[in-house]
Amino acid sequence: MEILNGKELKKKKLLELKEQVLKLSQPLGFAVVQVGHNEASNVYIRQKEKMAEQLGYEFYHISLEEDILEDELIQTIQELNEDEKVHGILVQMPLPSHIDAKKVQDAVNPEKDVDGLNALNSGKLLKQEEGLLPCTPSGIITLLHAYQIPLCGRHAVVVGRSELVGKPLALLLLNEDATVTICHSKTEHLEQYTKMADILISAVGKKDFIRADMVKEGAVVIDVGMNRVDGKLYGDVKYDEVAPYCSYITPVPGGVGPMTVLELGENVYRAHQKQLKKTFDR
Amino acid sequence: MEILNGKELKKKKLLELKEQVLKLSQPLGFAVVQVGHNEASNVYIRQKEKMAEQLGYEFYHISLEEDILEDELIQTIQELNEDEKVHGILVQMPLPSHIDAKKVQDAVNPEKDVDGLNALNSGKLLKQEEGLLPCTPSGIITLLHAYQIPLCGRHAVVVGRSELVGKPLALLLLNEDATVTICHSKTEHLEQYTKMADILISAVGKKDFIRADMVKEGAVVIDVGMNRVDGKLYGDVKYDEVAPYCSYITPVPGGVGPMTVLELGENVYRAHQKQLKKTFDR
Repeated sequence: MEILNGKELKKKKLLELKEQVLKLSQPLGFAVVQVGHNEASNVYIRQKEKMAEQLGYEFYHISLEEDILEDELIQTIQELNEDEKVHGILVQMPLPSHIDAKKVQDAVNPEKDVDGLNALNSGKLLKQEEGLLPCTPSGIITLLHAYQIPLCGRHAVVVGRSELVGKPLALLLLNEDATVTICHSKTEHLEQYTKMADILISAVGKKDFIRADMVKEGAVVIDVGMNRVDGKLYGDVKYDEVAPYCSYITPVPGGVGPMTVLELGENVYRAHQKQLKKTFDR
Repeated sequence: MEILNGKELKKKKLLELKEQVLKLSQPLGFAVVQVGHNEASNVYIRQKEKMAEQLGYEFYHISLEEDILEDELIQTIQELNEDEKVHGILVQMPLPSHIDAKKVQDAVNPEKDVDGLNALNSGKLLKQEEGLLPCTPSGIITLLHAYQIPLCGRHAVVVGRSELVGKPLALLLLNEDATVTICHSKTEHLEQYTKMADILISAVGKKDFIRADMVKEGAVVIDVGMNRVDGKLYGDVKYDEVAPYCSYITPVPGGVGPMTVLELGENVYRAHQKQLKKTFDR
Protein backbone atom coordinates (compact mmCIF):
# COMPACT_ATOMS: atom_id res chain seq x y z
CA MET A 1 0.00 0.00 0.00
CA GLU A 2 1.28 3.43 -0.98
CA ILE A 3 0.06 6.77 0.33
CA LEU A 4 -0.92 9.40 -2.24
CA ASN A 5 0.90 12.32 -0.68
CA GLY A 6 -0.92 15.44 -1.83
CA LYS A 7 0.99 17.63 0.58
CA GLU A 8 4.38 16.75 -0.93
CA LEU A 9 3.11 16.95 -4.49
CA LYS A 10 1.61 20.38 -3.83
CA LYS A 11 4.93 21.61 -2.45
CA LYS A 12 6.80 20.42 -5.56
CA LYS A 13 4.24 21.73 -8.04
CA LEU A 14 3.96 25.12 -6.32
CA LEU A 15 7.70 25.61 -6.81
CA GLU A 16 7.37 24.78 -10.52
CA LEU A 17 4.43 27.16 -10.81
CA LYS A 18 6.30 29.91 -8.98
CA GLU A 19 9.04 29.77 -11.62
CA GLN A 20 6.42 30.48 -14.26
CA VAL A 21 4.85 33.26 -12.20
CA LEU A 22 8.24 34.97 -11.69
CA LYS A 23 8.60 35.36 -15.45
CA LEU A 24 5.52 37.57 -15.65
CA SER A 25 5.91 41.32 -15.98
CA GLN A 26 3.18 42.15 -13.47
CA PRO A 27 1.96 40.62 -10.20
CA LEU A 28 -1.19 38.50 -10.47
CA GLY A 29 -4.19 39.47 -8.35
CA PHE A 30 -6.42 36.93 -6.63
CA ALA A 31 -9.62 38.04 -4.89
CA VAL A 32 -11.62 35.98 -2.39
CA VAL A 33 -15.10 37.24 -1.55
CA GLN A 34 -16.43 36.16 1.82
CA VAL A 35 -19.94 36.80 3.15
CA GLY A 36 -20.30 36.52 6.92
CA HIS A 37 -17.81 34.85 9.26
CA ASN A 38 -18.25 31.09 8.96
CA GLU A 39 -15.55 29.43 11.09
CA ALA A 40 -14.55 26.78 8.54
CA SER A 41 -14.49 29.41 5.76
CA ASN A 42 -11.98 31.43 7.78
CA VAL A 43 -9.67 28.39 7.85
CA TYR A 44 -9.99 27.77 4.12
CA ILE A 45 -9.42 31.43 3.28
CA ARG A 46 -6.22 31.48 5.37
CA GLN A 47 -4.98 28.47 3.35
CA LYS A 48 -5.69 30.37 0.14
CA GLU A 49 -3.96 33.47 1.41
CA LYS A 50 -0.89 31.42 2.31
CA MET A 51 -0.81 29.87 -1.16
CA ALA A 52 -1.11 33.34 -2.72
CA GLU A 53 1.79 34.57 -0.60
CA GLN A 54 3.95 31.60 -1.62
CA LEU A 55 3.29 32.37 -5.29
CA GLY A 56 3.70 36.12 -4.97
CA TYR A 57 0.08 36.84 -5.90
CA GLU A 58 -1.60 39.99 -4.62
CA PHE A 59 -4.32 38.72 -2.30
CA TYR A 60 -7.56 40.69 -1.93
CA HIS A 61 -9.82 39.48 0.87
CA ILE A 62 -13.20 41.14 0.40
CA SER A 63 -15.17 40.54 3.57
CA LEU A 64 -18.88 41.40 3.42
CA GLU A 65 -21.59 41.45 6.07
CA GLU A 66 -23.82 38.39 6.54
CA ASP A 67 -26.95 40.42 5.67
CA ILE A 68 -25.68 41.84 2.37
CA LEU A 69 -28.29 41.78 -0.42
CA GLU A 70 -27.77 39.48 -3.40
CA ASP A 71 -27.73 42.48 -5.75
CA GLU A 72 -25.04 44.20 -3.70
CA LEU A 73 -22.92 41.05 -3.73
CA ILE A 74 -23.30 40.74 -7.49
CA GLN A 75 -22.38 44.41 -7.83
CA THR A 76 -19.15 43.74 -5.88
CA ILE A 77 -18.36 40.82 -8.20
CA GLN A 78 -18.96 42.95 -11.27
CA GLU A 79 -16.50 45.52 -9.98
CA LEU A 80 -13.91 42.74 -9.56
CA ASN A 81 -14.75 41.50 -13.08
CA GLU A 82 -13.81 44.95 -14.38
CA ASP A 83 -10.74 45.40 -12.18
CA GLU A 84 -7.61 44.83 -14.27
CA LYS A 85 -5.50 44.14 -11.18
CA VAL A 86 -7.66 41.11 -10.37
CA HIS A 87 -7.00 37.98 -12.49
CA GLY A 88 -8.88 35.41 -10.42
CA ILE A 89 -12.08 35.66 -8.36
CA LEU A 90 -13.42 33.11 -5.90
CA VAL A 91 -16.62 33.42 -3.89
CA GLN A 92 -16.19 31.43 -0.69
CA MET A 93 -19.01 28.94 -0.12
CA PRO A 94 -21.31 28.47 1.69
CA LEU A 95 -23.29 31.68 1.18
CA PRO A 96 -26.16 32.70 3.52
CA SER A 97 -29.49 31.14 2.55
CA HIS A 98 -31.05 34.41 1.33
CA ILE A 99 -28.52 34.46 -1.53
CA ASP A 100 -28.78 32.28 -4.67
CA ALA A 101 -25.28 30.77 -4.80
CA LYS A 102 -25.56 29.61 -8.42
CA LYS A 103 -26.61 33.06 -9.59
CA VAL A 104 -23.59 34.52 -7.79
CA GLN A 105 -21.21 31.94 -9.32
CA ASP A 106 -22.60 32.71 -12.76
CA ALA A 107 -21.96 36.43 -12.21
CA VAL A 108 -18.19 35.86 -12.09
CA ASN A 109 -16.50 36.59 -15.42
CA PRO A 110 -15.84 33.05 -16.83
CA GLU A 111 -12.24 34.07 -17.55
CA LYS A 112 -11.64 35.02 -13.90
CA ASP A 113 -13.67 32.10 -12.50
CA VAL A 114 -10.79 30.26 -10.79
CA ASP A 115 -13.26 28.08 -8.88
CA GLY A 116 -14.53 26.70 -12.22
CA LEU A 117 -18.12 26.83 -11.01
CA ASN A 118 -19.55 29.28 -13.53
CA ALA A 119 -22.17 27.64 -15.81
CA LEU A 120 -20.11 28.44 -18.92
CA ASN A 121 -17.02 26.69 -17.50
CA SER A 122 -19.17 23.72 -16.43
CA GLY A 123 -20.48 23.48 -19.97
CA LYS A 124 -17.00 23.71 -21.45
CA LEU A 125 -16.01 20.79 -19.22
CA LEU A 126 -18.94 18.74 -20.52
CA LYS A 127 -18.07 19.65 -24.12
CA GLN A 128 -14.31 19.15 -23.62
CA GLU A 129 -13.65 22.76 -24.57
CA GLU A 130 -10.87 24.72 -22.95
CA GLY A 131 -12.10 26.47 -19.81
CA LEU A 132 -11.27 26.74 -16.13
CA LEU A 133 -11.88 23.49 -14.23
CA PRO A 134 -13.14 23.11 -10.65
CA CYS A 135 -10.15 22.63 -8.36
CA THR A 136 -10.95 19.51 -6.36
CA PRO A 137 -11.77 17.28 -9.34
CA SER A 138 -8.79 18.49 -11.37
CA GLY A 139 -6.55 18.13 -8.29
CA ILE A 140 -7.60 14.48 -8.01
CA ILE A 141 -6.71 13.84 -11.66
CA THR A 142 -3.34 15.59 -11.17
CA LEU A 143 -2.66 13.38 -8.13
CA LEU A 144 -3.56 10.17 -9.99
CA HIS A 145 -1.36 11.19 -12.92
CA ALA A 146 1.58 12.03 -10.67
CA TYR A 147 1.54 8.47 -9.30
CA GLN A 148 1.05 7.10 -12.83
CA ILE A 149 -2.12 5.29 -11.87
CA PRO A 150 -3.71 3.97 -15.06
CA LEU A 151 -7.29 5.13 -15.64
CA CYS A 152 -8.04 3.97 -19.19
CA GLY A 153 -10.62 1.18 -19.17
CA ARG A 154 -10.66 0.97 -15.38
CA HIS A 155 -13.82 1.27 -13.31
CA ALA A 156 -14.01 4.49 -11.31
CA VAL A 157 -16.86 4.71 -8.80
CA VAL A 158 -17.65 8.19 -7.52
CA VAL A 159 -19.81 8.39 -4.38
CA GLY A 160 -21.46 11.82 -4.31
CA ARG A 161 -23.06 13.83 -7.11
CA SER A 162 -22.41 17.46 -6.18
CA GLU A 163 -21.74 20.18 -8.75
CA LEU A 164 -18.51 20.89 -6.91
CA VAL A 165 -16.98 17.39 -6.98
CA GLY A 166 -19.06 14.40 -8.09
CA LYS A 167 -20.40 15.52 -11.45
CA PRO A 168 -17.31 17.34 -12.77
CA LEU A 169 -15.05 14.54 -11.53
CA ALA A 170 -17.16 11.95 -13.36
CA LEU A 171 -16.72 13.95 -16.58
CA LEU A 172 -12.95 14.30 -16.08
CA LEU A 173 -12.63 10.55 -15.43
CA LEU A 174 -14.57 9.89 -18.65
CA ASN A 175 -12.08 12.10 -20.49
CA GLU A 176 -9.38 9.82 -19.06
CA ASP A 177 -11.19 6.84 -20.63
CA ALA A 178 -12.32 5.34 -17.33
CA THR A 179 -15.68 3.61 -17.07
CA VAL A 180 -17.53 5.72 -14.52
CA THR A 181 -20.31 4.98 -12.03
CA ILE A 182 -21.87 7.77 -9.96
CA CYS A 183 -23.53 6.76 -6.69
CA HIS A 184 -25.34 8.98 -4.17
CA SER A 185 -27.73 9.06 -1.25
CA LYS A 186 -30.50 7.34 -3.25
CA THR A 187 -28.28 4.48 -4.44
CA GLU A 188 -29.47 1.09 -3.23
CA HIS A 189 -26.91 -1.52 -2.18
CA LEU A 190 -24.07 0.97 -2.39
CA GLU A 191 -21.45 -1.63 -1.41
CA GLN A 192 -22.31 -3.61 -4.55
CA TYR A 193 -20.90 -0.71 -6.60
CA THR A 194 -18.03 0.34 -4.35
CA LYS A 195 -16.75 -3.25 -4.25
CA MET A 196 -16.47 -3.22 -8.06
CA ALA A 197 -14.31 -0.09 -8.10
CA ASP A 198 -10.73 -0.11 -9.32
CA ILE A 199 -10.70 3.53 -8.27
CA LEU A 200 -13.08 4.53 -5.50
CA ILE A 201 -13.68 8.21 -4.78
CA SER A 202 -15.76 9.25 -1.80
CA ALA A 203 -17.16 12.79 -1.66
CA VAL A 204 -19.95 12.27 0.84
CA GLY A 205 -19.05 14.27 3.95
CA LYS A 206 -19.56 11.58 6.59
CA LYS A 207 -16.84 10.25 8.89
CA ASP A 208 -16.31 6.45 8.71
CA PHE A 209 -18.65 6.20 5.73
CA ILE A 210 -16.40 3.89 3.66
CA ARG A 211 -15.48 0.70 5.55
CA ALA A 212 -13.19 -2.18 4.63
CA ASP A 213 -16.02 -4.48 3.50
CA MET A 214 -16.99 -1.91 0.84
CA VAL A 215 -13.60 -1.89 -0.91
CA LYS A 216 -12.11 -4.33 -3.41
CA GLU A 217 -8.65 -5.69 -2.62
CA GLY A 218 -6.04 -3.61 -4.46
CA ALA A 219 -8.32 -0.63 -5.11
CA VAL A 220 -7.15 2.98 -5.31
CA VAL A 221 -9.10 4.97 -2.69
CA ILE A 222 -9.47 8.76 -2.92
CA ASP A 223 -11.01 10.45 0.11
CA VAL A 224 -12.53 13.87 -0.56
CA GLY A 225 -14.25 14.09 2.84
CA MET A 226 -13.44 17.03 5.15
CA ASN A 227 -15.36 16.27 8.31
CA ARG A 228 -14.57 18.23 11.44
CA VAL A 229 -15.43 16.33 14.61
CA ASP A 230 -14.43 17.82 17.96
CA GLY A 231 -11.98 20.13 16.21
CA LYS A 232 -10.23 17.30 14.36
CA LEU A 233 -10.35 16.67 10.62
CA TYR A 234 -11.54 13.32 9.30
CA GLY A 235 -12.22 12.00 5.79
CA ASP A 236 -15.09 9.78 4.67
CA VAL A 237 -12.92 6.66 4.78
CA LYS A 238 -12.26 4.60 7.91
CA TYR A 239 -8.57 4.83 7.13
CA ASP A 240 -6.95 2.29 9.49
CA GLU A 241 -9.41 -0.37 8.47
CA VAL A 242 -9.45 0.36 4.71
CA ALA A 243 -5.77 1.19 4.02
CA PRO A 244 -4.46 -2.41 4.26
CA TYR A 245 -6.73 -3.43 1.34
CA CYS A 246 -5.68 -0.61 -0.98
CA SER A 247 -2.94 -0.32 -3.56
CA TYR A 248 -3.04 3.47 -3.04
CA ILE A 249 -4.93 5.70 -0.63
CA THR A 250 -5.12 9.42 0.17
CA PRO A 251 -4.75 10.47 3.81
CA VAL A 252 -6.91 13.19 5.42
CA PRO A 253 -5.42 15.71 5.93
CA GLY A 254 -2.61 15.76 3.35
CA GLY A 255 -4.30 14.09 0.38
CA VAL A 256 -6.93 15.80 -1.74
CA GLY A 257 -7.09 19.05 0.29
CA PRO A 258 -3.63 20.36 -0.68
CA MET A 259 -4.28 19.41 -4.31
CA THR A 260 -7.37 21.63 -4.30
CA VAL A 261 -5.33 24.59 -3.08
CA LEU A 262 -2.61 23.85 -5.66
CA GLU A 263 -5.11 23.78 -8.53
CA LEU A 264 -6.54 27.08 -7.34
CA GLY A 265 -3.08 28.60 -7.60
CA GLU A 266 -2.67 27.06 -11.06
CA ASN A 267 -6.08 28.41 -12.09
CA VAL A 268 -5.12 32.01 -11.23
CA TYR A 269 -2.12 31.60 -13.56
CA ARG A 270 -4.25 29.90 -16.24
CA ALA A 271 -6.90 32.62 -15.93
CA HIS A 272 -4.25 35.28 -16.55
CA GLN A 273 -3.02 33.37 -19.63
CA LYS A 274 -6.57 33.31 -20.99
CA GLN A 275 -7.01 37.03 -20.37
CA LEU A 276 -3.70 37.74 -22.13
CA LYS A 277 -4.68 35.59 -25.09
CA LYS A 278 -7.99 37.42 -25.38
CA THR A 279 -6.18 40.77 -25.41
CA PHE A 280 -3.90 39.52 -28.19
CA ASP A 281 -6.88 38.19 -30.17
CA ARG A 282 -8.57 41.59 -30.19
CA MET B 1 -42.77 -7.11 -22.54
CA GLU B 2 -44.19 -3.73 -23.49
CA ILE B 3 -43.08 -1.53 -26.38
CA LEU B 4 -42.21 2.09 -25.55
CA ASN B 5 -44.12 3.70 -28.40
CA GLY B 6 -42.41 7.02 -29.05
CA LYS B 7 -44.36 7.55 -32.24
CA GLU B 8 -47.74 7.48 -30.47
CA LEU B 9 -46.51 9.57 -27.54
CA LYS B 10 -45.13 12.19 -29.91
CA LYS B 11 -48.49 12.41 -31.70
CA LYS B 12 -50.36 12.95 -28.43
CA LYS B 13 -47.86 15.45 -27.00
CA LEU B 14 -47.66 17.45 -30.25
CA LEU B 15 -51.44 18.00 -30.05
CA GLU B 16 -51.10 19.25 -26.46
CA LEU B 17 -48.25 21.52 -27.46
CA LYS B 18 -50.20 22.83 -30.45
CA GLU B 19 -52.97 24.00 -28.10
CA GLN B 20 -50.40 26.07 -26.24
CA VAL B 21 -48.91 27.43 -29.45
CA LEU B 22 -52.34 28.49 -30.76
CA LYS B 23 -52.77 30.77 -27.75
CA LEU B 24 -49.75 32.86 -28.75
CA SER B 25 -50.27 36.21 -30.39
CA GLN B 26 -47.55 35.69 -33.01
CA PRO B 27 -46.24 32.74 -35.01
CA LEU B 28 -43.01 31.20 -33.70
CA GLY B 29 -40.04 31.03 -36.04
CA PHE B 30 -37.71 28.02 -36.23
CA ALA B 31 -34.52 28.19 -38.31
CA VAL B 32 -32.43 25.20 -39.40
CA VAL B 33 -28.99 25.95 -40.80
CA GLN B 34 -27.58 23.31 -43.15
CA VAL B 35 -24.10 23.31 -44.63
CA GLY B 36 -23.69 21.12 -47.70
CA HIS B 37 -26.09 18.38 -48.81
CA ASN B 38 -25.52 15.34 -46.60
CA GLU B 39 -28.14 12.73 -47.53
CA ALA B 40 -29.06 11.77 -43.94
CA SER B 41 -29.24 15.45 -42.95
CA ASN B 42 -31.80 16.03 -45.70
CA VAL B 43 -34.00 13.32 -44.17
CA TYR B 44 -33.70 14.76 -40.64
CA ILE B 45 -34.41 18.29 -41.83
CA ARG B 46 -37.57 17.12 -43.61
CA GLN B 47 -38.74 15.58 -40.31
CA LYS B 48 -38.13 18.89 -38.56
CA GLU B 49 -39.96 20.82 -41.25
CA LYS B 50 -42.95 18.48 -40.92
CA MET B 51 -43.00 18.98 -37.14
CA ALA B 52 -42.83 22.76 -37.64
CA GLU B 53 -45.78 22.59 -40.05
CA GLN B 54 -47.83 20.53 -37.62
CA LEU B 55 -47.24 23.11 -34.90
CA GLY B 56 -47.78 26.14 -37.11
CA TYR B 57 -44.20 27.36 -36.73
CA GLU B 58 -42.62 29.42 -39.49
CA PHE B 59 -39.82 27.23 -40.83
CA TYR B 60 -36.65 28.82 -42.20
CA HIS B 61 -34.32 26.42 -43.99
CA ILE B 62 -31.01 28.20 -44.47
CA SER B 63 -28.98 26.11 -46.91
CA LEU B 64 -25.30 27.06 -47.25
CA GLU B 65 -22.59 25.81 -49.56
CA GLU B 66 -20.24 23.04 -48.41
CA ASP B 67 -17.20 25.34 -48.75
CA ILE B 68 -18.57 28.23 -46.64
CA LEU B 69 -15.97 29.73 -44.27
CA GLU B 70 -16.42 29.29 -40.51
CA ASP B 71 -16.61 33.08 -40.07
CA GLU B 72 -19.33 33.37 -42.67
CA LEU B 73 -21.34 30.62 -41.00
CA ILE B 74 -21.00 32.32 -37.61
CA GLN B 75 -22.04 35.61 -39.24
CA THR B 76 -25.22 33.90 -40.51
CA ILE B 77 -25.93 32.59 -37.00
CA GLN B 78 -25.43 36.04 -35.50
CA GLU B 79 -27.97 37.45 -37.92
CA LEU B 80 -30.44 34.77 -36.81
CA ASN B 81 -29.61 35.57 -33.16
CA GLU B 82 -30.68 39.18 -33.86
CA ASP B 83 -33.75 38.30 -35.93
CA GLU B 84 -36.87 38.79 -33.81
CA LYS B 85 -38.93 36.52 -36.09
CA VAL B 86 -36.65 33.58 -35.21
CA HIS B 87 -37.20 32.01 -31.78
CA GLY B 88 -35.23 28.80 -32.22
CA ILE B 89 -32.02 28.04 -34.14
CA LEU B 90 -30.56 24.63 -34.92
CA VAL B 91 -27.35 23.97 -36.84
CA GLN B 92 -27.68 20.58 -38.53
CA MET B 93 -24.78 18.28 -37.75
CA PRO B 94 -22.42 17.01 -39.06
CA LEU B 95 -20.59 20.08 -40.34
CA PRO B 96 -17.73 19.85 -42.88
CA SER B 97 -14.34 19.15 -41.28
CA HIS B 98 -12.92 22.64 -41.95
CA ILE B 99 -15.48 24.06 -39.49
CA ASP B 100 -15.18 23.83 -35.68
CA ALA B 101 -18.63 22.48 -34.75
CA LYS B 102 -18.34 23.39 -31.05
CA LYS B 103 -17.44 26.98 -31.86
CA VAL B 104 -20.47 27.18 -34.13
CA GLN B 105 -22.78 25.68 -31.47
CA ASP B 106 -21.45 28.19 -28.95
CA ALA B 107 -22.21 31.05 -31.33
CA VAL B 108 -25.95 30.37 -31.11
CA ASN B 109 -27.70 32.67 -28.62
CA PRO B 110 -28.24 30.37 -25.59
CA GLU B 111 -31.89 31.47 -25.45
CA LYS B 112 -32.47 30.36 -29.05
CA ASP B 113 -30.34 27.21 -28.76
CA VAL B 114 -33.15 24.67 -29.24
CA ASP B 115 -30.58 21.89 -29.75
CA GLY B 116 -29.31 22.50 -26.19
CA LEU B 117 -25.69 22.11 -27.35
CA ASN B 118 -24.36 25.55 -26.46
CA ALA B 119 -21.73 25.42 -23.69
CA LEU B 120 -23.85 27.66 -21.44
CA ASN B 121 -26.85 25.35 -21.71
CA SER B 122 -24.60 22.31 -21.10
CA GLY B 123 -23.32 23.98 -17.94
CA LYS B 124 -26.83 24.83 -16.78
CA LEU B 125 -27.69 21.16 -17.15
CA LEU B 126 -24.70 20.18 -14.99
CA LYS B 127 -25.65 22.80 -12.39
CA GLN B 128 -29.37 21.97 -12.53
CA GLU B 129 -30.16 25.53 -13.59
CA GLU B 130 -32.98 26.27 -15.99
CA GLY B 131 -31.78 26.18 -19.58
CA LEU B 132 -32.58 24.45 -22.86
CA LEU B 133 -31.86 20.72 -22.79
CA PRO B 134 -30.54 18.58 -25.65
CA CYS B 135 -33.49 16.88 -27.34
CA THR B 136 -32.57 13.19 -27.42
CA PRO B 137 -31.71 12.87 -23.70
CA SER B 138 -34.74 14.86 -22.59
CA GLY B 139 -36.93 12.88 -25.00
CA ILE B 140 -35.77 9.65 -23.35
CA ILE B 141 -36.67 10.99 -19.90
CA THR B 142 -40.09 12.10 -21.20
CA LEU B 143 -40.66 8.61 -22.63
CA LEU B 144 -39.67 6.87 -19.37
CA HIS B 145 -41.93 9.20 -17.38
CA ALA B 146 -44.88 8.65 -19.73
CA TYR B 147 -44.70 4.90 -19.05
CA GLN B 148 -44.21 5.58 -15.33
CA ILE B 149 -40.97 3.63 -15.22
CA PRO B 150 -39.35 4.25 -11.82
CA LEU B 151 -35.83 5.65 -11.96
CA CYS B 152 -35.06 6.54 -8.33
CA GLY B 153 -32.39 4.25 -6.91
CA ARG B 154 -32.31 2.10 -10.05
CA HIS B 155 -29.15 1.37 -11.99
CA ALA B 156 -29.05 3.08 -15.38
CA VAL B 157 -26.19 2.05 -17.67
CA VAL B 158 -25.50 4.38 -20.59
CA VAL B 159 -23.33 2.98 -23.39
CA GLY B 160 -21.81 5.93 -25.24
CA ARG B 161 -20.29 9.17 -23.92
CA SER B 162 -21.05 11.75 -26.60
CA GLU B 163 -21.84 15.38 -25.82
CA LEU B 164 -25.07 14.92 -27.75
CA VAL B 165 -26.47 11.93 -25.85
CA GLY B 166 -24.33 10.00 -23.36
CA LYS B 167 -23.04 12.76 -21.08
CA PRO B 168 -26.20 14.90 -20.86
CA LEU B 169 -28.36 11.79 -20.45
CA ALA B 170 -26.19 10.60 -17.56
CA LEU B 171 -26.72 13.98 -15.85
CA LEU B 172 -30.49 13.88 -16.42
CA LEU B 173 -30.68 10.34 -15.02
CA LEU B 174 -28.75 11.52 -11.94
CA ASN B 175 -31.32 14.28 -11.50
CA GLU B 176 -33.94 11.50 -11.49
CA ASP B 177 -32.04 9.84 -8.62
CA ALA B 178 -30.84 6.88 -10.68
CA THR B 179 -27.42 5.38 -10.01
CA VAL B 180 -25.61 5.90 -13.32
CA THR B 181 -22.79 4.08 -15.09
CA ILE B 182 -21.31 5.42 -18.31
CA CYS B 183 -19.57 2.91 -20.60
CA HIS B 184 -17.83 3.55 -23.91
CA SER B 185 -15.40 2.19 -26.47
CA LYS B 186 -12.60 1.85 -23.90
CA THR B 187 -14.73 -0.04 -21.36
CA GLU B 188 -13.40 -3.52 -20.65
CA HIS B 189 -15.87 -6.40 -20.15
CA LEU B 190 -18.79 -4.24 -21.25
CA GLU B 191 -21.31 -7.04 -20.70
CA GLN B 192 -20.41 -7.07 -17.00
CA TYR B 193 -21.95 -3.57 -16.74
CA THR B 194 -24.83 -3.96 -19.18
CA LYS B 195 -25.99 -7.12 -17.39
CA MET B 196 -26.30 -5.11 -14.16
CA ALA B 197 -28.56 -2.48 -15.74
CA ASP B 198 -32.15 -1.99 -14.64
CA ILE B 199 -32.30 0.56 -17.44
CA LEU B 200 -29.92 0.05 -20.36
CA ILE B 201 -29.45 2.83 -22.89
CA SER B 202 -27.38 2.23 -26.00
CA ALA B 203 -26.08 5.22 -27.98
CA VAL B 204 -23.26 3.57 -29.87
CA GLY B 205 -24.17 3.63 -33.55
CA LYS B 206 -23.56 -0.03 -34.40
CA LYS B 207 -26.22 -2.44 -35.65
CA ASP B 208 -26.63 -5.60 -33.50
CA PHE B 209 -24.29 -4.20 -30.85
CA ILE B 210 -26.49 -5.16 -27.87
CA ARG B 211 -27.26 -8.89 -27.80
CA ALA B 212 -29.48 -10.95 -25.50
CA ASP B 213 -26.59 -12.22 -23.37
CA MET B 214 -25.74 -8.60 -22.42
CA VAL B 215 -29.15 -7.82 -20.91
CA LYS B 216 -30.58 -8.62 -17.50
CA GLU B 217 -33.99 -10.31 -17.44
CA GLY B 218 -36.67 -7.65 -16.91
CA ALA B 219 -34.51 -4.70 -17.95
CA VAL B 220 -35.80 -1.58 -19.66
CA VAL B 221 -33.89 -1.17 -22.94
CA ILE B 222 -33.65 2.20 -24.73
CA ASP B 223 -32.15 2.10 -28.21
CA VAL B 224 -30.75 5.43 -29.43
CA GLY B 225 -29.00 3.91 -32.46
CA MET B 226 -29.87 5.19 -35.96
CA ASN B 227 -27.89 2.94 -38.28
CA ARG B 228 -28.73 2.97 -41.97
CA VAL B 229 -27.75 -0.29 -43.68
CA ASP B 230 -28.78 -0.80 -47.32
CA GLY B 231 -31.35 1.98 -47.03
CA LYS B 232 -33.00 0.47 -43.95
CA LEU B 233 -32.91 1.91 -40.42
CA TYR B 234 -31.61 -0.22 -37.54
CA GLY B 235 -30.93 0.51 -33.88
CA ASP B 236 -27.99 -0.71 -31.78
CA VAL B 237 -30.05 -3.50 -30.23
CA LYS B 238 -30.61 -6.92 -31.82
CA TYR B 239 -34.31 -6.43 -31.23
CA ASP B 240 -35.83 -9.87 -31.92
CA GLU B 241 -33.28 -11.53 -29.69
CA VAL B 242 -33.30 -8.95 -26.84
CA ALA B 243 -37.00 -8.00 -26.65
CA PRO B 244 -38.19 -11.25 -24.97
CA TYR B 245 -35.92 -10.52 -21.97
CA CYS B 246 -37.11 -6.94 -21.45
CA SER B 247 -39.88 -5.43 -19.38
CA TYR B 248 -39.90 -2.47 -21.81
CA ILE B 249 -38.05 -1.77 -25.05
CA THR B 250 -38.00 1.01 -27.68
CA PRO B 251 -38.36 -0.02 -31.32
CA VAL B 252 -36.28 1.53 -34.11
CA PRO B 253 -37.84 3.36 -35.84
CA GLY B 254 -40.69 4.64 -33.67
CA GLY B 255 -38.96 4.82 -30.27
CA VAL B 256 -36.41 7.49 -29.38
CA GLY B 257 -36.35 9.19 -32.82
CA PRO B 258 -39.86 10.69 -32.64
CA MET B 259 -39.21 11.80 -29.04
CA THR B 260 -36.19 13.81 -30.23
CA VAL B 261 -38.33 15.63 -32.81
CA LEU B 262 -41.05 16.24 -30.20
CA GLU B 263 -38.58 17.78 -27.74
CA LEU B 264 -37.25 20.01 -30.48
CA GLY B 265 -40.77 21.32 -31.03
CA GLU B 266 -41.15 21.80 -27.26
CA ASN B 267 -37.80 23.60 -27.12
CA VAL B 268 -38.87 26.18 -29.71
CA TYR B 269 -41.88 26.95 -27.49
CA ARG B 270 -39.72 26.97 -24.32
CA ALA B 271 -37.16 29.23 -26.02
CA HIS B 272 -39.90 31.72 -26.86
CA GLN B 273 -41.11 31.65 -23.24
CA LYS B 274 -37.56 32.44 -22.07
CA GLN B 275 -37.24 35.29 -24.53
CA LEU B 276 -40.60 36.70 -23.37
CA LYS B 277 -39.57 36.46 -19.73
CA LYS B 278 -36.33 38.28 -20.46
CA THR B 279 -38.26 41.10 -22.17
CA PHE B 280 -40.50 41.41 -19.10
CA ASP B 281 -37.51 41.37 -16.75
CA ARG B 282 -35.90 44.32 -18.49
